[in-house]
Amino acid sequence: MTKKPLHEDPIKHIVWTGDRLRVLDQRRLPRTVRFVTCRSAADVARATRDMVLRGAPLIGCAAAYGMALAARRNRLKDVRAASALLRRARPTAVNLMHALDHMLSVAESCPEPSLSAKMAAAAVKYREDDLGFNARMAALGAALLRPDSNVITHCNAGALATAGIGTAVGMIRAGWLAGSVAHVYPCETRPYLQGARLTLWELMQAGIPATLITDSMAAHLMKTRRIDAVIVGSDRIAANADVCNKIGTYGLAILAKHHRIPFYVVAPSTTVDFATRRGDDIPIEERSSREVVEIFGRKIAPKGAAAHHFGFDVTPHELVTAIVTEKGVVSPVNGANLRKVLRR
Amino acid sequence: MTKKPLHEDPIKHIVWTGDRLRVLDQRRLPRTVRFVTCRSAADVARATRDMVLRGAPLIGCAAAYGMALAARRNRLKDVRAASALLRRARPTAVNLMHALDHMLSVAESCPEPSLSAKMAAAAVKYREDDLGFNARMAALGAALLRPDSNVITHCNAGALATAGIGTAVGMIRAGWLAGSVAHVYPCETRPYLQGARLTLWELMQAGIPATLITDSMAAHLMKTRRIDAVIVGSDRIAANADVCNKIGTYGLAILAKHHRIPFYVVAPSTTVDFATRRGDDIPIEERSSREVVEIFGRKIAPKGAAAHHFGFDVTPHELVTAIVTEKGVVSPVNGANLRKVLRR
Repeated sequence: MTKKPLHEDPIKHIVWTGDRLRVLDQRRLPRTVRFVTCRSAADVARATRDMVLRGAPLIGCAAAYGMALAARRNRLKDVRAASALLRRARPTAVNLMHALDHMLSVAESCPEPSLSAKMAAAAVKYREDDLGFNARMAALGAALLRPDSNVITHCNAGALATAGIGTAVGMIRAGWLAGSVAHVYPCETRPYLQGARLTLWELMQAGIPATLITDSMAAHLMKTRRIDAVIVGSDRIAANADVCNKIGTYGLAILAKHHRIPFYVVAPSTTVDFATRRGDDIPIEERSSREVVEIFGRKIAPKGAAAHHFGFDVTPHELVTAIVTEKGVVSPVNGANLRKVLRR
Repeated sequence: MTKKPLHEDPIKHIVWTGDRLRVLDQRRLPRTVRFVTCRSAADVARATRDMVLRGAPLIGCAAAYGMALAARRNRLKDVRAASALLRRARPTAVNLMHALDHMLSVAESCPEPSLSAKMAAAAVKYREDDLGFNARMAALGAALLRPDSNVITHCNAGALATAGIGTAVGMIRAGWLAGSVAHVYPCETRPYLQGARLTLWELMQAGIPATLITDSMAAHLMKTRRIDAVIVGSDRIAANADVCNKIGTYGLAILAKHHRIPFYVVAPSTTVDFATRRGDDIPIEERSSREVVEIFGRKIAPKGAAAHHFGFDVTPHELVTAIVTEKGVVSPVNGANLRKVLRR
């Protein structure tokens, strides 16, 4: 079987037409392929909040387009209002804040009559940059892996989570093309099952050998099979290089350490939040318990059951072998090295 | 609210009427309360294989009744055939083998004409012993906990898994009555969701404060809340004190060690298999991948997806703080101490 090249990406999950944004509804994948059309920043904010779209880099790209939509009447105050609205849509993804700050600075520095055109161009550029970042990270990351690696990944840090080929999955795809990835085990990633629904789907589409596991099987797999690396994305990286990512990541990092398996985080530099000193300062989104006690609307727990739904967790930088950014690889992982690689 | 005493057990999940065994279908709990009637050893074997009933101690009790059903025509050869049949129903639960060996020795030592009556009496006695073991373990285990402990448990090692109040959940219930348990976090336990469906149900029935978590949330909880103990059951304990239990247990043990949280295993002495030298010699049941890629018949992964379904994993004895048996507490956990407490 011929390996599909990286740029041949069959996923059209975010389509900009100049006056609207079509967004693939990721909540129903892979069962149903349905699009949501956003005509305003409010539409983009709603789609972000309701998890129609997800993945920190993609949330940033969508927000950039949301800002472009808000600029259509060439009024700076609309753009400012949109920025405030979008900022509240998902508190953890710092790429969102980064995209909004960037788009706002574009808006502030251009005369109102040309706002619409400039903002649309800036949003398109923002997305193209993300695509480029993905390709660069994929190449840098794949070089870290030994030949024929078996790897575990968590959640979906793939094409669906970004503008392009993905962060963690981008590294995996580049590794597969280069012969450094042999087999992938995506954790299903409860409660939203992004690993089962999205990552496995992407891997199968790319023709990469993959076997799904429940989150609870990772430790057994690490003990009984040869696992060469754990590769994940990130929603926010603190100044000290602690990594916030989908719930379950921290546990995987501890298991990897116990089994002496390298633990890699792949994230664009826009994921780093130098304003947050340590990972424990990142507020962890507590989502509805309903998303835990029901699966696709079917109750899995007794009536009246209480449940926690932490959306994310924080992995201390000591547990991370390397952070792969588009500007270079941070290793050993600490705040000083992070600043050095990001040249700040 | 008055705390319900331990012996007031509302769960009638295995009912012996002298000529048949009624078994609660645990696959449909808590949504549907349905019973399966077993009239023969073959019926009991099928119910065991199909997970109508589950939990190593309960499987042992049901098998004892299955042997009694096989003896109804007072023919030793029927009993021998039943033993061979039941032995294959669930390979991991050593309590099953123990129950069958015990019932077979009763049969071999009694004249054929009285086989039916003797075997029925032996099965009833076997179950009563299990009840007594549960109570003893609950008391011994609860004494290990500090006051107002917050505890994590996995799968269902409760009343539903045993003849009585449960092993891990028995210890939790006794601890709750004594004031040494304040709050319980059951892991949902993918893929079968025994924690969400069964343990949480038992805890709610007993009025014990409990909050469900996904398996992937345990590490975050250990880092951010005060967790005082992890308490689990076991399907088989090897001679060197390695513990085989529901998939996910080994990972929890590593997380507990990382956070310096005591990790307790509660299991009757019939769980110990001195014929198996080390945990890694225990064959791990690989079940159908369908049980991972579907939840209640609904597909959660793309068509054609491959998945692993390891039913169990093995926790090395070094990660276990104490094993609580009805004969005493094994701690530190190693083969020599295990033999000493079990007086062999």
